[in-house]
Amino acid sequence: MAVSFVPSVLVAGASGYAGALAARLIHRHPEFELAAITSRSEAGRPLSDVYPHHRVPLVMEELDLDRPAGIDAAIVAYPHGAAAPLVADLLDRGVRVVDLSADFRLRDQAAYERWYVTHSHPDLIERAVYGLTELNREAIAGADLVACPGCFPTAAILALAPLASAELIADVVIDAKTGVSGAGRGLREDTQFVAVDENVRPYGVGEHRHMPEIDQELAKLGAPIIAAFTPHLVPLDQGELVSCYVTTTRPIGQGELDEWYAEAYGGEQFIDLVSRPPGVRDVRETNICAIHAHGDERTGKVFVFAAIDNLWKGTSSQAVANLNLMFGLPEGLGIS
Amino acid sequence: MAVSFVPSVLVAGASGYAGALAARLIHRHPEFELAAITSRSEAGRPLSDVYPHHRVPLVMEELDLDRPAGIDAAIVAYPHGAAAPLVADLLDRGVRVVDLSADFRLRDQAAYERWYVTHSHPDLIERAVYGLTELNREAIAGADLVACPGCFPTAAILALAPLASAELIADVVIDAKTGVSGAGRGLREDTQFVAVDENVRPYGVGEHRHMPEIDQELAKLGAPIIAAFTPHLVPLDQGELVSCYVTTTRPIGQGELDEWYAEAYGGEQFIDLVSRPPGVRDVRETNICAIHAHGDERTGKVFVFAAIDNLWKGTSSQAVANLNLMFGLPEGLGIS
Amino acid sequence: MAVSFVPSVLVAGASGYAGALAARLIHRHPEFELAAITSRSEAGRPLSDVYPHHRVPLVMEELDLDRPAGIDAAIVAYPHGAAAPLVADLLDRGVRVVDLSADFRLRDQAAYERWYVTHSHPDLIERAVYGLTELNREAIAGADLVACPGCFPTAAILALAPLASAELIADVVIDAKTGVSGAGRGLREDTQFVAVDENVRPYGVGEHRHMPEIDQELAKLGAPIIAAFTPHLVPLDQGELVSCYVTTTRPIGQGELDEWYAEAYGGEQFIDLVSRPPGVRDVRETNICAIHAHGDERTGKVFVFAAIDNLWKGTSSQAVANLNLMFGLPEGLGIS
Amino acid sequence: MAVSFVPSVLVAGASGYAGALAARLIHRHPEFELAAITSRSEAGRPLSDVYPHHRVPLVMEELDLDRPAGIDAAIVAYPHGAAAPLVADLLDRGVRVVDLSADFRLRDQAAYERWYVTHSHPDLIERAVYGLTELNREAIAGADLVACPGCFPTAAILALAPLASAELIADVVIDAKTGVSGAGRGLREDTQFVAVDENVRPYGVGEHRHMPEIDQELAKLGAPIIAAFTPHLVPLDQGELVSCYVTTTRPIGQGELDEWYAEAYGGEQFIDLVSRPPGVRDVRETNICAIHAHGDERTGKVFVFAAIDNLWKGTSSQAVANLNLMFGLPEGLGIS
Repeated sequence: MAVSFVPSVLVAGASGYAGALAARLIHRHPEFELAAITSRSEAGRPLSDVYPHHRVPLVMEELDLDRPAGIDAAIVAYPHGAAAPLVADLLDRGVRVVDLSADFRLRDQAAYERWYVTHSHPDLIERAVYGLTELNREAIAGADLVACPGCFPTAAILALAPLASAELIADVVIDAKTGVSGAGRGLREDTQFVAVDENVRPYGVGEHRHMPEIDQELAKLGAPIIAAFTPHLVPLDQGELVSCYVTTTRPIGQGELDEWYAEAYGGEQFIDLVSRPPGVRDVRETNICAIHAHGDERTGKVFVFAAIDNLWKGTSSQAVANLNLMFGLPEGLGIS
Repeated sequence: MAVSFVPSVLVAGASGYAGALAARLIHRHPEFELAAITSRSEAGRPLSDVYPHHRVPLVMEELDLDRPAGIDAAIVAYPHGAAAPLVADLLDRGVRVVDLSADFRLRDQAAYERWYVTHSHPDLIERAVYGLTELNREAIAGADLVACPGCFPTAAILALAPLASAELIADVVIDAKTGVSGAGRGLREDTQFVAVDENVRPYGVGEHRHMPEIDQELAKLGAPIIAAFTPHLVPLDQGELVSCYVTTTRPIGQGELDEWYAEAYGGEQFIDLVSRPPGVRDVRETNICAIHAHGDERTGKVFVFAAIDNLWKGTSSQAVANLNLMFGLPEGLGIS
Repeated sequence: MAVSFVPSVLVAGASGYAGALAARLIHRHPEFELAAITSRSEAGRPLSDVYPHHRVPLVMEELDLDRPAGIDAAIVAYPHGAAAPLVADLLDRGVRVVDLSADFRLRDQAAYERWYVTHSHPDLIERAVYGLTELNREAIAGADLVACPGCFPTAAILALAPLASAELIADVVIDAKTGVSGAGRGLREDTQFVAVDENVRPYGVGEHRHMPEIDQELAKLGAPIIAAFTPHLVPLDQGELVSCYVTTTRPIGQGELDEWYAEAYGGEQFIDLVSRPPGVRDVRETNICAIHAHGDERTGKVFVFAAIDNLWKGTSSQAVANLNLMFGLPEGLGIS
Repeated sequence: MAVSFVPSVLVAGASGYAGALAARLIHRHPEFELAAITSRSEAGRPLSDVYPHHRVPLVMEELDLDRPAGIDAAIVAYPHGAAAPLVADLLDRGVRVVDLSADFRLRDQAAYERWYVTHSHPDLIERAVYGLTELNREAIAGADLVACPGCFPTAAILALAPLASAELIADVVIDAKTGVSGAGRGLREDTQFVAVDENVRPYGVGEHRHMPEIDQELAKLGAPIIAAFTPHLVPLDQGELVSCYVTTTRPIGQGELDEWYAEAYGGEQFIDLVSRPPGVRDVRETNICAIHAHGDERTGKVFVFAAIDNLWKGTSSQAVANLNLMFGLPEGLGIS
């Protein structure tokens, strides 16, 4: 569906890192109009007061779904649990929604409720499309509710999808390293500068909420396993590296490996297959996922490293890519 | 052997990070005297010109083994290959040696030569004791040549020893994160500030020289495996975290796990068994290795995290601990 | 002069930080074509090998002014002394030049030779226009040789110009803080990560080469003084803050101060007059100079703080702004 | 007064950065005993839970001045306003006090109340000795209440004292750069990692509370001026650099300058007169103030740079030095 009009987009929850970046991307987008930005906690504050570098000249407002009229789409950047009711309201009004929360990522309501909270709108779960752009492009284009993946699942699933689809994964260890913006903007002792600086530490060991999401998607692709996933906090603001150590179901040489990845991602504008292990600097402030797959002769394992910007490809620029698809626009518009 | 005299110690190769820190620790040590510091490339330069914070008031000299007379011991901080001839010379003169290079770490000459260079003194390999203090305390005390472990092997082997000794390791993935000082002081494009800042990246993938050392020691303890080891460079100066993901030979619960570690390390002054995953800040500028073992019910694996200061426990303070033992002094003297 | 053709631009010296960023900005520019990139030391290397995040798909070449034919303009990113001969060659061929070096910044040949080297083309000095966009817009538009200012002079002069023009500056102390990219990409002991991390230190005290440039331009504006300028290295990659402490020729209140700045910069798209002292994060990767002027009642002085990105406004994006003007294009094209 | 007993020391307010470090220094001190540590907000929490690297095996308690009995001294690390009542209580009980707050630094009650709050115990102001060790050694030794200087005044006054005493200061601009720990441990938006990382920004412009303290002490020494003082936040945890730009009352050459500083500080164990401008890394985790004075021929000004660790010399190790003096112990005991 091509557009001859300029869709009007609301960003709800613009005071957090993800919402603010979404607001910036929509504000500069050549084919969307940023209708309004809202915040539950900081209504009345100019966004540029918190994020001068985003240069969005709007003031955060209280949410009022009757104003402005004529919203065509919304990016919802609310915490899990709080997002679902707003999403339901928006859908009722015919607004297409890209949701950045976890509320519609898990297909299994029970799983959601085990890891998060009681779900207020379980009926909408099935309506949602999982917004990993490269894997679900067609479904996203036809959806009115897209659940954007978490930042870790984005990188991990892109790293592993070619192997999972070929049923080559017997077991996998995923060791992730993330910058501090991944923790959100709330004031916390462990995200204070002095706690993070000159430090590296694991967190959420054995209990991180992105685990069921990774397992769900790998299973869907062809790898019904339980991944060992552990994130680590490193002293940088934006950027995420996942290092995946795969025990394969059969021996795979580097040549075959390269073929699987080239086949899966050869035509993708936002996947860089790189010949050296990537650093997160390489993809800073881009929608790109840089991937390097290494067939390790010594151990027989396959190592896959994937780097993204957790706020861009891991959250907000992927949301815009999805919104582009939902309105028949080129996937990379406004985020290249 | 208790000492009634103050041993006189030479630090050879004091211009690098490891040698300079060794010089500082010996200079402040209550029972050693720092006889001289040498450098091949920067002789004539005061050490405080390069390392003002170490506050060692000596000038780096050309090496001259006849002067000063009466050296009792030496810490050799030369690159691999260059260390062995000097070590041989020193041993010939009756000087006890702690070698920080890789030259005497590997028991197997062929393995050494595959990963490093042709060995100039293979006859001395057997004479060397592997200087992981906690595991080889008695042998170190009786040795005249101690080969200090690499920084990654120090952390990885301490993390895994209790499981290896109990023959519980079927397979292991070791994902390491290190500060930049681990790369040494030589000028390199990839250790320039702008290359490291806001970055995380894997390096030495499938070919890091610490791999055979880790495998050798784990095998010696009871785990004849090939570990999948990959280091990552993170933006901090000192500190190293190893995250070990163990597939065990049989199921182990948290209770049993805690027992193994308490039994192995309960009395160790430089091992901290911590109830939360450690960060490298917790052990900065100490000889301590902080370890957290987690029995992961979801995956059935055991996760072990170990944090050290790569220049202290990973190199120079462990060298001093070993030197203490070699002269009958308390292990922690001068490094607590 | 409006263009109906797409000017073809050469970037000479693309391996350094400034040249590489210039290449990226020209590559993405809607109205320029990046004809070629050259490097004296790294010809044959793809630019993306050194700067993957710039995403410029060209290989650095040896310079050959006969190939490609039809170059309309060049951005020269050579070291001082090496730039002048190339600039002369280019001008001879009718190529319009934006020079990033210091070779044509100082009007006084003797001053240049005192601070730098013997000048190979002193006859061209007068032909050059000083490329501080906001102050010399008309002259730049008509020039065929523009000498881009140093990063510190850019920030300092923009901070002080309104006061200098009003002959209000009796004396000034300029204390600058810069990220490490300002030192260039060459391997140096003092730009290694371990030397910069957790450090702040002054450098070039009493002898920094940007001093005569600052004095020259302030005098031209109306402040014939000798400024006390001192830069400091801080642990970040890009960004520069100058803190200017002005002793005024007569008392000035906040109200009058605000008027001077509003009058000078009210219509400028790349000057942000901010109500709070700016941080360098606010202008990262932009062509913007953020300025805050404070009339200090306690001391009677005026404090002016200006923040820029040293590689963007301080170097390469300002070069592109100037090139835009030289070809009759909107100043902000390709850099907003 | 020499001691034949081991004084028992209370640290009140141990949960903050300053109190926690004071606890560590007293805990390891060879001639003091750490009797107890207290916290108003985190009583019941082991100190090692917050500060594992300090390795103090005590639990923070509610303050109870009757327990433990027999306290000889206290280091009070309370916020301004809250410190004074506790100090008064302690003095009533015959306990010698080193106060880290601002409550007894300013001699002028009205000045204190203008910058802080109403003073609860103005009668004690005169009893307090200003605890800048190098300048007030004798008075400190005889005091029962020592008001430790702020971190900025410590560095600034040590930098300027030789010139102030010689009545050589006509005017001075002080531009300070500080690590984030200077802001304390409270949760604040502007000390979150993401706000500080890759940033430099001025703060407290024209209104920082350390200004009257600097002016008071410079006047006492012989420079009755109003200094232009501005601090800047830089991305590092510990460390502080002050850059002082002095307009002198008469011309001073480098030779005379060196003599003034050598005379003032030649015998000081904790002042390093350095030949190159110091970096804060040089003095990290020490009680040392490194000073470099430069007679600037171009401008006729004198530039003085001083580096300290804001938590050590700037706060807690200076407190211990003062406590040493109050008990007749060597000044450097436990902090060298």
